Amino acid sequence: MLWGGAFAEPSDADLRALQDSISFDKRFYKQDIIGSIAYARAIAATGILTPDESTVIESGLRQVLGEFESGAFELKDGDEDIHTAVERRLTELVGAVGGKLHTGRSRNDQVATDFRLWVLDAMSQVDAGLANLQTALIEKADQHVEMLMPGYTHLQPAQPITAGHWLMSFFWMVSRDRDRLSDAARRAAVSPLGSGALAGTPFDVDRALLAAELGFQSYTENSLDGVSDRDFVAEFLFALALIGTHLSRLAEDIIIYSNPLFGYITLNDRYSTGSSIMPQKRNADPMELARGKTGRLIGNLTGLLVVLKGLPSTYDKDLQEDKEAVFDSVDNMLLLLPVVTAIITTLHLNPDKMKAALGGDMLATDLADYLVRKGLPFRQAHHISGQAVRLAASRGVEITSLTYDDFRGLSDLFTEDVMAVFDFAASVAKRKAVGGTAPEAVRQQITNAQKWLSEHQSVQPVQLK
Amino acid sequence: MLWGGAFAEPSDADLRALQDSISFDKRFYKQDIIGSIAYARAIAATGILTPDESTVIESGLRQVLGEFESGAFELKDGDEDIHTAVERRLTELVGAVGGKLHTGRSRNDQVATDFRLWVLDAMSQVDAGLANLQTALIEKADQHVEMLMPGYTHLQPAQPITAGHWLMSFFWMVSRDRDRLSDAARRAAVSPLGSGALAGTPFDVDRALLAAELGFQSYTENSLDGVSDRDFVAEFLFALALIGTHLSRLAEDIIIYSNPLFGYITLNDRYSTGSSIMPQKRNADPMELARGKTGRLIGNLTGLLVVLKGLPSTYDKDLQEDKEAVFDSVDNMLLLLPVVTAIITTLHLNPDKMKAALGGDMLATDLADYLVRKGLPFRQAHHISGQAVRLAASRGVEITSLTYDDFRGLSDLFTEDVMAVFDFAASVAKRKAVGGTAPEAVRQQITNAQKWLSEHQSVQPVQLK
Amino acid sequence: MLWGGAFAEPSDADLRALQDSISFDKRFYKQDIIGSIAYARAIAATGILTPDESTVIESGLRQVLGEFESGAFELKDGDEDIHTAVERRLTELVGAVGGKLHTGRSRNDQVATDFRLWVLDAMSQVDAGLANLQTALIEKADQHVEMLMPGYTHLQPAQPITAGHWLMSFFWMVSRDRDRLSDAARRAAVSPLGSGALAGTPFDVDRALLAAELGFQSYTENSLDGVSDRDFVAEFLFALALIGTHLSRLAEDIIIYSNPLFGYITLNDRYSTGSSIMPQKRNADPMELARGKTGRLIGNLTGLLVVLKGLPSTYDKDLQEDKEAVFDSVDNMLLLLPVVTAIITTLHLNPDKMKAALGGDMLATDLADYLVRKGLPFRQAHHISGQAVRLAASRGVEITSLTYDDFRGLSDLFTEDVMAVFDFAASVAKRKAVGGTAPEAVRQQITNAQKWLSEHQSVQPVQLK
Amino acid sequence: MLWGGAFAEPSDADLRALQDSISFDKRFYKQDIIGSIAYARAIAATGILTPDESTVIESGLRQVLGEFESGAFELKDGDEDIHTAVERRLTELVGAVGGKLHTGRSRNDQVATDFRLWVLDAMSQVDAGLANLQTALIEKADQHVEMLMPGYTHLQPAQPITAGHWLMSFFWMVSRDRDRLSDAARRAAVSPLGSGALAGTPFDVDRALLAAELGFQSYTENSLDGVSDRDFVAEFLFALALIGTHLSRLAEDIIIYSNPLFGYITLNDRYSTGSSIMPQKRNADPMELARGKTGRLIGNLTGLLVVLKGLPSTYDKDLQEDKEAVFDSVDNMLLLLPVVTAIITTLHLNPDKMKAALGGDMLATDLADYLVRKGLPFRQAHHISGQAVRLAASRGVEITSLTYDDFRGLSDLFTEDVMAVFDFAASVAKRKAVGGTAPEAVRQQITNAQKWLSEHQSVQPVQLK
Repeated sequence: MLWGGAFAEPSDADLRALQDSISFDKRFYKQDIIGSIAYARAIAATGILTPDESTVIESGLRQVLGEFESGAFELKDGDEDIHTAVERRLTELVGAVGGKLHTGRSRNDQVATDFRLWVLDAMSQVDAGLANLQTALIEKADQHVEMLMPGYTHLQPAQPITAGHWLMSFFWMVSRDRDRLSDAARRAAVSPLGSGALAGTPFDVDRALLAAELGFQSYTENSLDGVSDRDFVAEFLFALALIGTHLSRLAEDIIIYSNPLFGYITLNDRYSTGSSIMPQKRNADPMELARGKTGRLIGNLTGLLVVLKGLPSTYDKDLQEDKEAVFDSVDNMLLLLPVVTAIITTLHLNPDKMKAALGGDMLATDLADYLVRKGLPFRQAHHISGQAVRLAASRGVEITSLTYDDFRGLSDLFTEDVMAVFDFAASVAKRKAVGGTAPEAVRQQITNAQKWLSEHQSVQPVQLK
Repeated sequence: MLWGGAFAEPSDADLRALQDSISFDKRFYKQDIIGSIAYARAIAATGILTPDESTVIESGLRQVLGEFESGAFELKDGDEDIHTAVERRLTELVGAVGGKLHTGRSRNDQVATDFRLWVLDAMSQVDAGLANLQTALIEKADQHVEMLMPGYTHLQPAQPITAGHWLMSFFWMVSRDRDRLSDAARRAAVSPLGSGALAGTPFDVDRALLAAELGFQSYTENSLDGVSDRDFVAEFLFALALIGTHLSRLAEDIIIYSNPLFGYITLNDRYSTGSSIMPQKRNADPMELARGKTGRLIGNLTGLLVVLKGLPSTYDKDLQEDKEAVFDSVDNMLLLLPVVTAIITTLHLNPDKMKAALGGDMLATDLADYLVRKGLPFRQAHHISGQAVRLAASRGVEITSLTYDDFRGLSDLFTEDVMAVFDFAASVAKRKAVGGTAPEAVRQQITNAQKWLSEHQSVQPVQLK
Repeated sequence: MLWGGAFAEPSDADLRALQDSISFDKRFYKQDIIGSIAYARAIAATGILTPDESTVIESGLRQVLGEFESGAFELKDGDEDIHTAVERRLTELVGAVGGKLHTGRSRNDQVATDFRLWVLDAMSQVDAGLANLQTALIEKADQHVEMLMPGYTHLQPAQPITAGHWLMSFFWMVSRDRDRLSDAARRAAVSPLGSGALAGTPFDVDRALLAAELGFQSYTENSLDGVSDRDFVAEFLFALALIGTHLSRLAEDIIIYSNPLFGYITLNDRYSTGSSIMPQKRNADPMELARGKTGRLIGNLTGLLVVLKGLPSTYDKDLQEDKEAVFDSVDNMLLLLPVVTAIITTLHLNPDKMKAALGGDMLATDLADYLVRKGLPFRQAHHISGQAVRLAASRGVEITSLTYDDFRGLSDLFTEDVMAVFDFAASVAKRKAVGGTAPEAVRQQITNAQKWLSEHQSVQPVQLK
Repeated sequence: MLWGGAFAEPSDADLRALQDSISFDKRFYKQDIIGSIAYARAIAATGILTPDESTVIESGLRQVLGEFESGAFELKDGDEDIHTAVERRLTELVGAVGGKLHTGRSRNDQVATDFRLWVLDAMSQVDAGLANLQTALIEKADQHVEMLMPGYTHLQPAQPITAGHWLMSFFWMVSRDRDRLSDAARRAAVSPLGSGALAGTPFDVDRALLAAELGFQSYTENSLDGVSDRDFVAEFLFALALIGTHLSRLAEDIIIYSNPLFGYITLNDRYSTGSSIMPQKRNADPMELARGKTGRLIGNLTGLLVVLKGLPSTYDKDLQEDKEAVFDSVDNMLLLLPVVTAIITTLHLNPDKMKAALGGDMLATDLADYLVRKGLPFRQAHHISGQAVRLAASRGVEITSLTYDDFRGLSDLFTEDVMAVFDFAASVAKRKAVGGTAPEAVRQQITNAQKWLSEHQSVQPVQLK
């Protein structure tokens, strides 16, 4: 225990069980040790450590790191958190000089440093997973640029679209996610080390050099803020929750499109699952998990914001509740992303089912547009097209089954060329303005996406210099 | 794997990592096995199992239970969830007859049954923890019925109160929590077993008997609802979140009252903690954790509600995301409650600091009430008392330092007995209507609380008959 | 302004804009006035008001109530909240004696009282709306007890069910919602009046009588808790959020089932909507709103819990943030319920589309059950049935198209009666155990539901005695 | 109604009440009209409108705008949303040609455009409010660079700090908030106009020009995504929620520091409030509202994320639930910011109360540091300092009251200069490394903050070119 000097009695066992964080913050072992190596160098530069002491400590820390990485590290009673555990082991290895490492440093700035390093690493992993998903989407879209499928709004047939266009819509969601991660990483890459417990360090530590050595882009400007800022956690959790909502929307489409009445999609056997009781089942379980896990991601974000709300300045123990939420969100995201990516890669699209589902009424807008091109205001054109829909429905058919005379009965602006409206491919081809569903526009979209990918800078994990 | 018959290819490893729930649902081992024993008996009663088969299966299941309890149970590859693991092991032990157990049962109704049994058990543990806290509050309050302390609203001095009254205020919050748990337990104690995958069981299972045997109070009336109802989880998570807000309010008081400027409270050394850098620190860490963990409890509730939102009928894989949130909330609550209870039990209250903080202006309402008793409408009395406060403030004192002449200058309703207003104990004693802060009323309150405790029925864990 | 006496300067205008609650708490006008009438009687009973004063005040309050109800009440500058506004107007009407009403009462216990009265009234309205929905569900189910439809899990075809069974599944969700409302109403119907600002009342008010007069079931036992308990708000918001998730699940089914590829359902024209651009559109907009509004209901619950978290004891101004969330949730629920109910009442089910969607493979479980009845353990039976599914799939058909020889090739337990398995109505009829989908069981279910309805006690609004 | 052509029956009144959004989306009138003017120009450029028609429509739209701004605009029955209302009025003013405006445009891309324009405007207002708060913080900090006050962690006395440092800690939180707003604004400033209902526009509209004309920075690359992307709303709500947590932390400090036992702070009379019953009360109500409203801000964020979760592709009516949450968060933030800023500006700090609260034990870390400078490892130094604390406590004093002999008794590293440690100003002055609390460092911090302010680019509202 690092703080017992002034206490008359030891902590209660129940308190220890509540309080100790080693069971989860041991995940910071690498960040903690790297941070300590950099810190040892920094206080050596000010003369607090002699060069020899610095060498001994760094070498001891590297040995502790090795023990963690090989699985040889043994937790002992009293290792309440990762900082205590590392310092305890270091002192076992190098003697009392290990106790110099905490000079001018507090667990408050230490854990803030560890956590930022960990978050930056996790962000780079999530970012890489998203990049893979983007590549899978582009490749799959590129194979289906011309494939016609029904487009829906409100899950009701709306207009024909192309399958490549549908797939690419998710690319851009992910591109925003990666943009957000980059911004969040920039704000996370700020070193709090040297903030001490709250008031700054009384030793002449070069915080800028320390930050640079750990791969941070800058350092915090106020020590009170430095020890208690958890914005970078909240921002990461938000980014993860929003990634979740995007995956959940993809999931909803895939779940519905793989119901046999739709049948637009067949999931690969390796990525679908069966039932313990119903032998015929083939479920899109992983996509349901993508949808379900979004709840958890949103809950984790909410939870952290509640923790932060109403705290007084500087460090409060409440902040110990900041880690498990982000571990959980990251772990779940890193489980999800490869599976979702593989599902996209192995997705089989069924053009016949899609084509069969293209109802003639989905061209009603094109019919109205036809009248617009004849000079009728759209509002009236929409009304006449609506009457055509109703006329067809009264006969149990769709507008593509109406006769030329039927159309003439609705408006004398119709001429024989009206029947040319009823061509799904032509309908789609017309929507070639940028961002539209025409194959021509989708090809351009794919080119833009590839350009985006080649220009976008990935989130980089930090590295000890 | 329980469902491979119709599949051409095995599941992908990443999918398995995403999908398998054994890492957390193994916590249901006892519930799963008990549920299976009851189910075996039920299908034996219909002739699906012979008496011999039933005996063999029940005995095998008890052996599996023993292995879990002794730690001897070994998970194998392919044990995707607790149901699979138990059935796999059972079949190893008793042979192919083990495969009869799943007759007419689905993992859908099985997991719903396990989960309800687990939740009822967890509810009874939380309820017991709350009962201990109530007892601690009553005992501590009983020792401090007459102790005067400042009462606050908006954290500004308001009126004098008694420390026993302050402590008892938390008793009643907890009593509502326990009431809510009882209601939630009643709704949880409903057996879904026999709902099958979704459509009910085609075998002639006596669901009422099955429910009774497992200790449920009733059974679900609709199989579609039975397999997908997670209201009992949401309701438990809500109850836990609200318990959290109560603990967080107690925490806020204790944290502030143990700041030395207040000093009303000294935490026992065994329940406070120090600092790795500042030797003099004595922090109310566990109460900060109580406050912080409330964020997590709220996040877990939010997360589950999001999971449920917008799901189609019956079972969807999203529902696999229902367990970890409740495990986390329960585990954290069960860590918190004994520590909070011990803190109350060992709490030291400092009457001198409390008395010293009783400012004379806290009797301004009593001053107004004095005028009311002389016949002045309260609104005017309030105004005159406010002028007294302002007059005193202009001299840098409080109203208790004003002279009789000062009061006469404000209103000629004041007579010499006005100086008797300035007695904190008398002020408190006057508030003796039920629920008030007077020692007399607090004694009655404690009696009522003891009555509540003796009459309230605890949540009971279910038991296999 | 009720509190200016001690202040040297008036409030800033921006502060007033931030602080004043009259814009929303004016919704409490009725509760505030009724509460004041009861309070006037109570303090008259103690002699604080003479009988004449009491009569004058009650009559004045009834006049103010009349002004609110007729729309004649005029807000004036300085009416910061409903309590101030009512007292100001009362004093205009009856003179300074109106200022006696606040004797021993604080806005803290007053607003808590108003709010509980309002919530009880709102609960009774929501409860009545839910009762109507239950009736609609029973009626519609009763008309479709025998109608076959595909049952889904994971939105994949699972087993045949009956439409009445599907409709009834929502009845039971709503029955739990109403149970929860009843429990919440019991806990809400507790009078805090007489708690004063925080310490209780120094006047000899009979709190029990006061509670009874306002229609409360009991009164709060601790004044500190009494002024700051908002559990009843949280519990109501939770109940509303969970109602929302149930409506959102119904919504998801209806949205999907009214897609033309499913076509199980046709929404009445009066309850579906079109598009500004696509003339053929017929959207299930209200059900999408039901699903979407669930987000808002969950957000409102989360918001209130966050408000409560970490507050110190007694009243803090944060609690002013307790009302708008519940107003919003209640208003939206009361908009939703009649529309959802009308949609159920006017829902058209299309048996042909449902029957057409019943795929033969949905009987694979029945095929396995067949083998079980021949003595094979279910686990092996499941496997053989899975092989049948795979064999059929390899020929592009379903198991109902396999020949007797095909079955014999899979297991010699198959005898000629196997072909009788392939009858959807028979499959359904077998699931007649309680809670099952068989018409026989659904009829019993409807009877049970009617019994539930006739026995369940609705939430009653409170009434001034 | 814009979509009735194909419908046989009018909408139900309850449905209309549920469905119509005009009551809240009328706040978009300006954005809707500006967007329509730009759109009219764009379709005129393609020949859909003649130059004359374009002029007539633009002039009509400006007249409608004028009516809204003067309050003369009258809603009519059937104005279901702002788009319908504007088009209806335009057509009344300019005749059927007004019906041409909707050519190739859908309410789906129209509302997405309106909403982005509105959000950018709101972001610029919030950003300006934050800039004012930053200025107030710098000014107040600059006046208190040397003022000593106790620094807390866990709300327990930790180390002496300077008041300027405390104030500046909030500056940097706000600077991150503004950074986040800038990033969010960049992602919001993307035009979806030209996405049509979902598939893009079949007319040859120059989307890039259209975007530029409305002041957007770019345009959406995929029409399916364009009509349903609400990331910009979620991101704004998140930014607002996080601003809330920062304000809530400032609030917590101010509420506690203005309790008279602390007394560090006196709120100006114009920004504090009293009690209806307790004449002496002076509450920090606005800061309590800042803390409480954070709950609401978090709830609004949660709510929107839930709305988005699990939606299928493109536009669903659920998205109508996207506006009120953001209106509510923005309105509340714009109420809060000026008051919080004024509170900072008018805040009175009481150096005497702060100095009196500086306990000698807060120098225990300095005492340990003293030993470190004598060569002792910090860990041992911490222990000896802790013993000094305990020794002092055993005598009921603080370490500053121990004698030189006492220190010698603990370690012979102590020499007479140890007494120089006990100087609060010197302790603070030592923490002069960047970000530290020393006046020297705080002055540099203020300079850096001013530089930040002068270099940071504010969020700009968009403007019609």
